[in-house]
Amino acid sequence: MPVKLRAPKASSLLPVKGVRLGFAEAYVKKPNRKDVLVMALDEGCHVVGVFTQNRFCAAPVALCRQFLAEKTEIRALLVNTGCANAGTGGEGLKLARQSCEALAGLLNLKANQVLPFSTGVILELLPVDKVIAGLPAAIENLKADNWLNAAEAIMTTDIVAKGTSRQIQLGGKTVTITGISKGSGMIHPNMATMLGYVATDAVVSKAALESMIQFAVNKSFNCITVDGDTSTNDSLIFIATNQAGQQEVTENSPEFSLLRDAFTEVAIELAQAIVRDGEGATKFMTVAVEGGKNDTECRKVAYAIAHSPLIKTAFFASDPNLGRILAAIGYAGIEDLDVNTLQLYLGDVLVAEKGGRASSYVEAQGAAIMKEPDILVRVVLNRGAHAVTIWTCDFSYDYVRINADYRS
Amino acid sequence: MPVKLRAPKASSLLPVKGVRLGFAEAYVKKPNRKDVLVMALDEGCHVVGVFTQNRFCAAPVALCRQFLAEKTEIRALLVNTGCANAGTGGEGLKLARQSCEALAGLLNLKANQVLPFSTGVILELLPVDKVIAGLPAAIENLKADNWLNAAEAIMTTDIVAKGTSRQIQLGGKTVTITGISKGSGMIHPNMATMLGYVATDAVVSKAALESMIQFAVNKSFNCITVDGDTSTNDSLIFIATNQAGQQEVTENSPEFSLLRDAFTEVAIELAQAIVRDGEGATKFMTVAVEGGKNDTECRKVAYAIAHSPLIKTAFFASDPNLGRILAAIGYAGIEDLDVNTLQLYLGDVLVAEKGGRASSYVEAQGAAIMKEPDILVRVVLNRGAHAVTIWTCDFSYDYVRINADYRS
Repeated sequence: MPVKLRAPKASSLLPVKGVRLGFAEAYVKKPNRKDVLVMALDEGCHVVGVFTQNRFCAAPVALCRQFLAEKTEIRALLVNTGCANAGTGGEGLKLARQSCEALAGLLNLKANQVLPFSTGVILELLPVDKVIAGLPAAIENLKADNWLNAAEAIMTTDIVAKGTSRQIQLGGKTVTITGISKGSGMIHPNMATMLGYVATDAVVSKAALESMIQFAVNKSFNCITVDGDTSTNDSLIFIATNQAGQQEVTENSPEFSLLRDAFTEVAIELAQAIVRDGEGATKFMTVAVEGGKNDTECRKVAYAIAHSPLIKTAFFASDPNLGRILAAIGYAGIEDLDVNTLQLYLGDVLVAEKGGRASSYVEAQGAAIMKEPDILVRVVLNRGAHAVTIWTCDFSYDYVRINADYRS
Repeated sequence: MPVKLRAPKASSLLPVKGVRLGFAEAYVKKPNRKDVLVMALDEGCHVVGVFTQNRFCAAPVALCRQFLAEKTEIRALLVNTGCANAGTGGEGLKLARQSCEALAGLLNLKANQVLPFSTGVILELLPVDKVIAGLPAAIENLKADNWLNAAEAIMTTDIVAKGTSRQIQLGGKTVTITGISKGSGMIHPNMATMLGYVATDAVVSKAALESMIQFAVNKSFNCITVDGDTSTNDSLIFIATNQAGQQEVTENSPEFSLLRDAFTEVAIELAQAIVRDGEGATKFMTVAVEGGKNDTECRKVAYAIAHSPLIKTAFFASDPNLGRILAAIGYAGIEDLDVNTLQLYLGDVLVAEKGGRASSYVEAQGAAIMKEPDILVRVVLNRGAHAVTIWTCDFSYDYVRINADYRS
């Protein structure tokens, strides 16, 4: 079950002026579930995206990159679950393009004004006829207050729909930021198997929006891992509809950081929600590595811990078998690491220092913390001033069950 | 259950002249199990070793390195299970040294003529009194034909004892090579959580033996992975007792490669046995990556596949969800990889080419192969002439169970 995570209420996901959302049950893979989402954007929006770094990127990712590079005005997003349309070669590209053409035809747009997104099984061609057959229903129910339905329509093995909203004051106007995301396995930075869509009605320049998405993704979706697998389909999209009526936010505006930080908060909440709903997750782990010479070595240590199946199964068992964390620190790849000068904390408790167990450490302390649903693992390297924080979850029987049964 | 692996018969593990082995039930952690092993070596042996690259190397590993560097004649090896004596700082070093001193006293040696080895839980101090109390019994039963008992005495979560022998002709004499090893989680190259001891009675120069262990470890223990965790205690030892009476094998002898290859064969069999008995393993996977520009990129792809929990759980389920393999190839980190020119084979069956599913591929073929206990995953990169083969196992409920319960 998700770790301290509930689906948002429909009323808590605030409409963003200029964005309407509609869904369909198109039976892409399974009957009776929302599996097609259409997001329709008013004229005048800016749309920016970051995508998977997987070389086997999916056909829709390739098209997104192409359409964004063509600098047409993006007016609609089309998402399907049930099939990733990845590892499908030239034929997959053709099918993804067909789906864009179909939606463009219904909305009176050009194909390259529609960004396509797919998530699901890899190595299977998109059943494009089913997706297209679902489009009229999705268009029929396009509404501004449909964010929760949209969050549900993009779920795959997610148990809980993920979404959040913020409002801030910008230049005397209230602007809204609303986002949704989906996980929940094949989650790894650069990026997760995830789809994320965050929209604001704020007036913001495209360059500023580009800068914000880069900043936010590095603080959020690039800091989470469930199983270390980087998906073929990861996509994060930021949308600015420019309808809030304030003065445009540019990279030099005093209000730039306000809006950027609000986007980042939303992105962190959506990213953490993916981990809290990680496949089979029973614990949410924050891994904080500080005192490093640079970010790279902090990340190495953090991911060595976050990826270790031995550590993740010990957390699942609430077993303070913390030597496994020392082992992971030791093999993380810092060649000149002096294990005698670092400290390992579990929550506030000092567990290890001087190359071994801290003299003050009593196992009952570790055992108590391991029972919590949210656990902080903190490593102080004492080599420099850099720090990195990432989030992950434990590794349970259910992870194996979910992934062994995924296609059945 | 181990994948196509049985314990050797006692009679199949051939004595090596100059090596005697004795064990004890010392209750290091659990009662009624062999948990202390003594290997006594005649005078005139060469002993060489390779050890974990983990910065948190265990106290016994630090002492082994020190004693081997001191170039005293090694006359005994002392192994305990039940406690790794790793992450134990200066106090752990003291205890490991005490155990060497105790055995040295009983055998009339100096402490630095005894190499210590420990495996078990990390972050706990060696219960040295228990180990020492077991030494007289171990010395009492020192015998040349005790290899199977020795293999059993070093097991931790291993289900099956691991050992093998070879005999070859060298300079008109029959020489014997016998080795034992233990796994079975925290297994990753450089090296596995493993202990391995391989001895020959052949006459061989120390330099040649050094060269042989480096060659053999790179073809064997550095090519296996169970869970990607590199242990703090990995140690592989080669011993030459120099009693077979043939002319000494040096690095320039025509017979050098004969002996080296026999050592390597033994090492590969012992390393593969560790994977076949990997924690919770139900499938043995050979991952062969060929056609790479260099070994490094072949290894990247091979390990991306071998470490993916998504792939390993799909193999556990016998589910030919092969898109996950494409995804792993895609995120392995080859920046200029052209996914349209590589091929993926499962056994002999071409699964994917030209960026997608091969037109000849029928899922029933994949499903049939996935049911086998031994499965070959072959990736042809078509970029160069380099190739790497590694071995791993699947990821089952039992992996989680074993590691969640490890300390209980």
